[in-house]
Amino acid sequence: MRIVLDAMGSDNHPTPDVAGAVMAAREWADDIILVGREGLVRAELAKHDADGLRITVVHAPEIIEMHEHTNAVKRKKASSIRVGMRLVHDGQADAFVSAGNTAAVLASAIFDLGRIRGIRRPALATVYPVANSPVLLIDNGATADCKPEYLLQFARMGVAYVENVWGISNPRLGLVSTGEEPDKGNMLVRDTYSLLEQSGLNFVGNVEPKDVSRDAADVVLTDGFSGNIMVKTTEAVASYLFRYTKEQLTGGARNTIGLALMLPGLVLMLPGLALLYPSLKRIARRFDYAEYGGALLMGVNGVVVVGHGRSNTKAIKNAIRQARNAVDGRVLEVVRASAAGDRPGEA
Amino acid sequence: MRIVLDAMGSDNHPTPDVAGAVMAAREWADDIILVGREGLVRAELAKHDADGLRITVVHAPEIIEMHEHTNAVKRKKASSIRVGMRLVHDGQADAFVSAGNTAAVLASAIFDLGRIRGIRRPALATVYPVANSPVLLIDNGATADCKPEYLLQFARMGVAYVENVWGISNPRLGLVSTGEEPDKGNMLVRDTYSLLEQSGLNFVGNVEPKDVSRDAADVVLTDGFSGNIMVKTTEAVASYLFRYTKEQLTGGARNTIGLALMLPGLVLMLPGLALLYPSLKRIARRFDYAEYGGALLMGVNGVVVVGHGRSNTKAIKNAIRQARNAVDGRVLEVVRASAAGDRPGEA
Repeated sequence: MRIVLDAMGSDNHPTPDVAGAVMAAREWADDIILVGREGLVRAELAKHDADGLRITVVHAPEIIEMHEHTNAVKRKKASSIRVGMRLVHDGQADAFVSAGNTAAVLASAIFDLGRIRGIRRPALATVYPVANSPVLLIDNGATADCKPEYLLQFARMGVAYVENVWGISNPRLGLVSTGEEPDKGNMLVRDTYSLLEQSGLNFVGNVEPKDVSRDAADVVLTDGFSGNIMVKTTEAVASYLFRYTKEQLTGGARNTIGLALMLPGLVLMLPGLALLYPSLKRIARRFDYAEYGGALLMGVNGVVVVGHGRSNTKAIKNAIRQARNAVDGRVLEVVRASAAGDRPGEA
Repeated sequence: MRIVLDAMGSDNHPTPDVAGAVMAAREWADDIILVGREGLVRAELAKHDADGLRITVVHAPEIIEMHEHTNAVKRKKASSIRVGMRLVHDGQADAFVSAGNTAAVLASAIFDLGRIRGIRRPALATVYPVANSPVLLIDNGATADCKPEYLLQFARMGVAYVENVWGISNPRLGLVSTGEEPDKGNMLVRDTYSLLEQSGLNFVGNVEPKDVSRDAADVVLTDGFSGNIMVKTTEAVASYLFRYTKEQLTGGARNTIGLALMLPGLVLMLPGLALLYPSLKRIARRFDYAEYGGALLMGVNGVVVVGHGRSNTKAIKNAIRQARNAVDGRVLEVVRASAAGDRPGEA
């Protein structure tokens, strides 16, 4: 497998990007093609023991910064995103992974790879972390303004992913809404509800956020605006809870004394804590975004994964894993076949 | 002040409803009018020491259940919601509070009280709990399909509330979106952005969920669909985090032994924990929805507060507090004046 990684993607590029590529190349023996400013990338690579790993570097002198407008995509033909995307387009690589500017990656994917014939709009599929079993949320922000027909296609793409990558047959599909009843939600949701009922998919009806966190569906369908707000709210709430608790417990002399007084007890607790350690570690992993990789851009002619801007090494490695799983699962072929079957006459 | 409470509102009605009314009547010496099945309500009231409290009971034989369709509102003229709402309409009470079916309360408010002249759509204003300073989110679900002009009116109503009830002058207004830049979000958000820039309000631009939790705005504006998803996601994530952590730590023999081994250490920690107690209590209160009351329905001709279905006594009392604060702050008059100024010629 040959995977292109945007070495200039993450907020701290190229450090975590290159380190993640090295980890991935070591673990899966894939070909990793690092795209970015060659001197910089090679210098970073030299910090690692990459002997025997199948890592190559392709020069791309330009960078599209995090907050640049998508206009930059057209202008910066020699950016790491565009150069990397074209390697996929030209068949020199199987997937493109970037922790860079999401809107720019989207624009470049549509521009350089094109939409799959029959697919009206692209969608970002992400693992939604707040549930006990894996849940795929689609769309996490690729298409903010949706029509019911787009959502139906997103549903089919999400189902294809979960069936072929996660091996869940006939996955349960839920539609994000503000209530379970078919008349709850906005116009888009109500119209989509009727389409889904007739779709032949395993549609379980509307799901509220609390249902999602109680494993009511395997694929959770929403427009790109609400989906992105839902995912970002999830991150913000989790991060606030930890921050607030820490602030409250560590502020002030009273708490400092209280915590100091607790130390001997804590020491006495260590054997018990040692037994609890696997559970504690599992909890920490559960809420570590880096475990989940990134979002798979579906509906374009190529496997493209967008990681979080603040990706660390582990997150980059997991974004690469997500890309290789999508390639292994032949998701692209399945979506192409389904889109062709869906709308045989349409371009 | 005279406040009508729907005694048949909460999931466990009339127990927490009546108990909350008794607490409120004791604390603020208001007139509380309990509306519901008289025999049932009086029997519940008899369990409390309500001597000297200004509590009366008005009979309403019908109940609109939690999952009934809003059609029931037209049919059940003798329901606690409709009877209570008409007491406000007839000037016999200053506010109506219910922890019942939100959609039914909305429909009855529009039907029995009517919209304020010039206001196009109603909106629900709620305290968004995940921030260090108080944040008002509007709309939390009254109007799922919005136009930019509706959102501008919601913004003015939210600002009026925060100025007059919370005493924050010239509050910062943020528009919920998927990115800070003016071109981020969906069409509705982008069009609303331009309107807000010219509104004379203290518009601080788009806010993402992480900005809201970092106190970037006092009033957070969103359409009723996204707003409701945001609030419900917040509740679901907080509740999942606690549930998951508990499940992980208490499951299995290994963890049971681990926790047992920690007990002596915990005993030794008690003096330290006693010092931390005020902070721990503050954290628990921070994440207790019952502290926040309910949502104020804005844009109708009366003060209406809708509480959470699973309201307990404290939540009912706080919903009553929210209603009396809105009456005290003369929010209705301010919104009426602003709506009249806004669109002088419109009905």
